[in-house]
Amino acid sequence: MTAPAQATLAVSTVIFALRSDAESDFKTLWLPLVRRTREPFLGQWALPGGGLPAGEELAMAAARTLRETTGLTPKYLEQLYTFGDPGRSPGGRVVSVVYWALVQSDEAAHAVVGDNVQWFPADRLPDLAFDHNRIVEYALWRLRTKVEYSRIAHAFLGETFTLAQLRDVHEAVLQKALDPANFRRTVESSGTVVDTGERVAGARHRPPRLYRYNDSVRAVALGPLGPSIG
Amino acid sequence: MTAPAQATLAVSTVIFALRSDAESDFKTLWLPLVRRTREPFLGQWALPGGGLPAGEELAMAAARTLRETTGLTPKYLEQLYTFGDPGRSPGGRVVSVVYWALVQSDEAAHAVVGDNVQWFPADRLPDLAFDHNRIVEYALWRLRTKVEYSRIAHAFLGETFTLAQLRDVHEAVLQKALDPANFRRTVESSGTVVDTGERVAGARHRPPRLYRYNDSVRAVALGPLGPSIG
Repeated sequence: MTAPAQATLAVSTVIFALRSDAESDFKTLWLPLVRRTREPFLGQWALPGGGLPAGEELAMAAARTLRETTGLTPKYLEQLYTFGDPGRSPGGRVVSVVYWALVQSDEAAHAVVGDNVQWFPADRLPDLAFDHNRIVEYALWRLRTKVEYSRIAHAFLGETFTLAQLRDVHEAVLQKALDPANFRRTVESSGTVVDTGERVAGARHRPPRLYRYNDSVRAVALGPLGPSIG
Repeated sequence: MTAPAQATLAVSTVIFALRSDAESDFKTLWLPLVRRTREPFLGQWALPGGGLPAGEELAMAAARTLRETTGLTPKYLEQLYTFGDPGRSPGGRVVSVVYWALVQSDEAAHAVVGDNVQWFPADRLPDLAFDHNRIVEYALWRLRTKVEYSRIAHAFLGETFTLAQLRDVHEAVLQKALDPANFRRTVESSGTVVDTGERVAGARHRPPRLYRYNDSVRAVALGPLGPSIG
């Protein structure tokens, strides 16, 4: 067996939030990026993250570096994937363990925004540092497959939501418009959501119904390792 | 930001195969383990794996160490999870990127078995080195959630299979007996498999029908990063 080499370990986070987009009719996914203040890739945008200190647990390091760079503190971060191509970082191998979270808009609003931290639409990113464009592309793909079998709206929207809000989430993730009547039929026949009997407060004419997930339908969770992203 | 510390990187693999089990009525999941020939955990069983050389890609290192220790060469390995608790290895932090594969019995038969390599039933493992029991437990959990929405029988059985073989896979993964008639109804109504029109060759009386997955039902794949486990 070849002797193991030392490598630099880093953590990065992909944080998706749903936002209105002036350029399109439907909501889109946005994520916060941090401008690099040192080489390599000085001045380029990158995912929030940093190095892994010796005694710190991976998810803790991801949460800490996210908080330090953006002010964001999602309720939990799920491990997405580990990227370790030998050539992904100039000047020495860096293996990055990437975490992700979907956050609600009130949580997203806590982010510190300034010259060195900004939100970008996920489908119109600049050239990012390292292989971070590829990481975001992978995260988007995972989200698209996940939306079909998990409680993804819950992560973006909270406990209760209207069918229009749920459709917004699916449209943003799938990046296509969905027919409202077809969407309603599909969701209602799936049995995954139930009518709470309540309606949106404050709406004057025919306030929309509020739904919640059907707890008897098992969620896709993280199992023995902790809570889930959606 | 705290400066990144160097850490030792390792790769490990969890390889599941379906085998008949003398102690139970249904097939069970087995995996190959390798006896450690050095400290720490000298003499204990561990997942196949090894250190990550500087210039080697993660999945390549996983495939190479698996081949070197067990002789197994699965068609592809999927990244499962990265384990990095600071205390998981005595004498210095080791972060392990774990890959997994489901293999068919003909592939499993290629494994070199000897004093230092043996197959164990996944639900009756000895005390393994490091946190490898926890890693197997996590892999089993992922498999149980995956069986409900992916083409898992394909990975264990090949292109065509009987409904009894498909039930064997589900029973092994879910660790419970399934009613044959109910299972048949559920699978047939799901539309995920189609009758090939062929039957098992060689069976004399009512040879069972052969099924294959319905290609028009999208598989859960690895997307932009490569092929999928099931």
